[in-house]
Amino acid sequence: MSAADPISDFETFYYNQTLDHFNFRPDSFNTFQQRYLINFKHWGGSNVSAPIFAYLGEEEAIDVDLSIIGFLSENAHQFQALQIFIEHRYYGKSVPFRSREEAFQNASTLGYFNSAQALADYAEVLIHVKKKLHAQHSPVIVIGASYGGMLASWFRLKYPHVALGALASSAPIRYFENIIPPEDGYYSIVTKDFREASETCYQTIKKSWSEIDAIASQPQGLSFLSEKFHTCRPLNKSSELKNYLDTLYCEAAQYNSPPSYPVTVVCGGIDGASGNDTLTKIFAGVVAYTGNRSCYVNQPRNLSETDMGWSWQTCSDLVIPIGVGNDSMFPAYQFDLKDYIKSCKAQYGVPPRPHWATTYFGGHDIKLALERFASNIIFSNGLRDPYSSGGVLEDISDTLIAVHTKNGSHCLDILNANSVTDPGWLVNQRKIEVKIIKRWIAKYYADLQAFKK
Amino acid sequence: MSAADPISDFETFYYNQTLDHFNFRPDSFNTFQQRYLINFKHWGGSNVSAPIFAYLGEEEAIDVDLSIIGFLSENAHQFQALQIFIEHRYYGKSVPFRSREEAFQNASTLGYFNSAQALADYAEVLIHVKKKLHAQHSPVIVIGASYGGMLASWFRLKYPHVALGALASSAPIRYFENIIPPEDGYYSIVTKDFREASETCYQTIKKSWSEIDAIASQPQGLSFLSEKFHTCRPLNKSSELKNYLDTLYCEAAQYNSPPSYPVTVVCGGIDGASGNDTLTKIFAGVVAYTGNRSCYVNQPRNLSETDMGWSWQTCSDLVIPIGVGNDSMFPAYQFDLKDYIKSCKAQYGVPPRPHWATTYFGGHDIKLALERFASNIIFSNGLRDPYSSGGVLEDISDTLIAVHTKNGSHCLDILNANSVTDPGWLVNQRKIEVKIIKRWIAKYYADLQAFKK
Repeated sequence: MSAADPISDFETFYYNQTLDHFNFRPDSFNTFQQRYLINFKHWGGSNVSAPIFAYLGEEEAIDVDLSIIGFLSENAHQFQALQIFIEHRYYGKSVPFRSREEAFQNASTLGYFNSAQALADYAEVLIHVKKKLHAQHSPVIVIGASYGGMLASWFRLKYPHVALGALASSAPIRYFENIIPPEDGYYSIVTKDFREASETCYQTIKKSWSEIDAIASQPQGLSFLSEKFHTCRPLNKSSELKNYLDTLYCEAAQYNSPPSYPVTVVCGGIDGASGNDTLTKIFAGVVAYTGNRSCYVNQPRNLSETDMGWSWQTCSDLVIPIGVGNDSMFPAYQFDLKDYIKSCKAQYGVPPRPHWATTYFGGHDIKLALERFASNIIFSNGLRDPYSSGGVLEDISDTLIAVHTKNGSHCLDILNANSVTDPGWLVNQRKIEVKIIKRWIAKYYADLQAFKK
Repeated sequence: MSAADPISDFETFYYNQTLDHFNFRPDSFNTFQQRYLINFKHWGGSNVSAPIFAYLGEEEAIDVDLSIIGFLSENAHQFQALQIFIEHRYYGKSVPFRSREEAFQNASTLGYFNSAQALADYAEVLIHVKKKLHAQHSPVIVIGASYGGMLASWFRLKYPHVALGALASSAPIRYFENIIPPEDGYYSIVTKDFREASETCYQTIKKSWSEIDAIASQPQGLSFLSEKFHTCRPLNKSSELKNYLDTLYCEAAQYNSPPSYPVTVVCGGIDGASGNDTLTKIFAGVVAYTGNRSCYVNQPRNLSETDMGWSWQTCSDLVIPIGVGNDSMFPAYQFDLKDYIKSCKAQYGVPPRPHWATTYFGGHDIKLALERFASNIIFSNGLRDPYSSGGVLEDISDTLIAVHTKNGSHCLDILNANSVTDPGWLVNQRKIEVKIIKRWIAKYYADLQAFKK
């Protein structure tokens, strides 16, 4: 595996994209400039139908992906592959209407912002690029991470004539409409991760919530907590602290990657603190994870475009029901769909469609539906990733393959490789993926040969 | 094969359907009442996961289909199948907005009228019905004719988690974006049909067009033609007569079914006329086909809902490029996409999207794209059907199967059977289709058994 290409090897292009692919009202014909980047360096060319690796952007600007996703450029050379990164509509520079502000104004402008439209965007860009390069018979492998991984697998399912195969990394495509019980999802894996790292750490966190509540309910309790946790602003409610800790544990678990393994770091802090005071231990965990700062909790922070965009997406077509079970280290919480719909409606004026994802993409009894239908998707997961709870963890068929690692975290397999610190199991996971993709492409070339006769 | 069930065995239902599945603007959430009809008589029930036969309506009211489509009710008993007929949006009683007049007002109301939306409608209705009947594991076989046949095959491709298989009768899914040269399409088969029926008939028709033009260009020529053809109104232009004849020949070829074989009837008239006058012969063909009438050509006629609906559909997502080649019995005509777009735009204010069908559904190099992807579709055709030119006439794989008959016509295999007059090859075509569907269902039950363990 070679090192990633520098970002400067990518050229930027814009495609005049249709605002609404599935409607023919006059306003549907409006267009916006969708950004995509191409690296031609390693491409074997259309004469030999050399492959195209297409990264399908998820909920952020495509520049971010370019700097952290290593899988394409690390493997482009051995595949002689063209690399293309395509930005998701409403993110980065690919925002319809005149500005992000206008695009996010209300449901009338946000309405066009959903995954079915994004998939159609990707289809149009890829067809356009293949045509421009006279590469109609170049096999396209789509690659995506997290939500982008869902898009990659769905793209193979909906546009098999455009993409030959998909590498869907950490794609929780089974995390809709109670395919899995919401309480067996995300938080159950976070809990497992901490418990496996340290039973005492897990116990400390488990009992901390009620201690925080107990102190917060006392006079001066919030000031005490604010001081204890060196908050950036005095706490108004205990939930501010609890949400901060919740997010910190989740982030540590989701990105629990080598060489540092953040969960181990947090638990190292918690278990290593002197004394017996639970909240002192918890704070030590915070410091161990985030490093020495002037303050913690309630740091001033602006909403990022990912925050804003994902908030809409999970309130429109991507309703992911996340609950917390009784065995968790977090306070139990039952996902309430009615409440959820109500709050989305209050925020955007329109309700989400919680059944749409399974209607359009399926997900229930996925093995039964796809075993004899569809082919060429890798569902890769790290089992320490909380989102792996909604992933595909068993092979569906010979060509719909689950590749997972016990110790892996969110999207780890397609992030930039590190030849020094990457453990053997991670190197191996990537090797397996490359081998599978090679098999698909070899079979495709044989089909192409036969087809041309 | 038993006789078709009476229409009275069907119960009528309405589903509260979403206006726009792929958008979340406030107006997308509007709903309309979509009609569907169910026959429960033969259904084996959800306990045994008995199959569901779903007829996907095409460009007309679903009542019409109910009276002419025999395949479902003729086979429901042996499959213990539930029968459901679902009406296509904007046809029959399934019209959004307050009335057909309002729905067809302009592109703002017509915009929601396209095949991707219709497929999503069918998915929602089928999921709803399966849920209501606790029949989640009942295999659904979708069946469609002509445009509805395209919908059936596309439904299996886009919603494999809803339908186990599809019988797509006379579905010209390769009739888009010059996958076939436009001049090798529809009219080339009509010509072949007439030529095979009678070489002299073909020759007579071939030379008739220039004779009509020659006469029409003379003073009193149009009155002469009006008298000759007993027109209902005097001709204003020779094109009125030529369009009438064009339509007559096409209809005869498309529905060239036993026992009468209309092409043979027309040619019988043409060849059997006494004397040597071309137009006398042509008129004899008209009379032979349409019977004795008080007048022919220019009969007063209102636009049907199919005329109105299909006109929009072919000017939005379903641009079918039909041309006429030089070897044809018709005057040559080159399909001009620019002209076509211009005339659609003039009529509706918005242009069609001629590349959308292949972008969303594919069609180019279909064998290469689908051989190892997808399963369980029967593409049935009669080779005398002009639309078979855009159909799938070769097996793509073991489960994507072309079943065609040399002498068959448009949708003949799924129309009401006639145990007295149906020829052996037609009876056999239907038997093959039933056998294939039985195989799919048997395999599915085996998968289901394994899946439940």
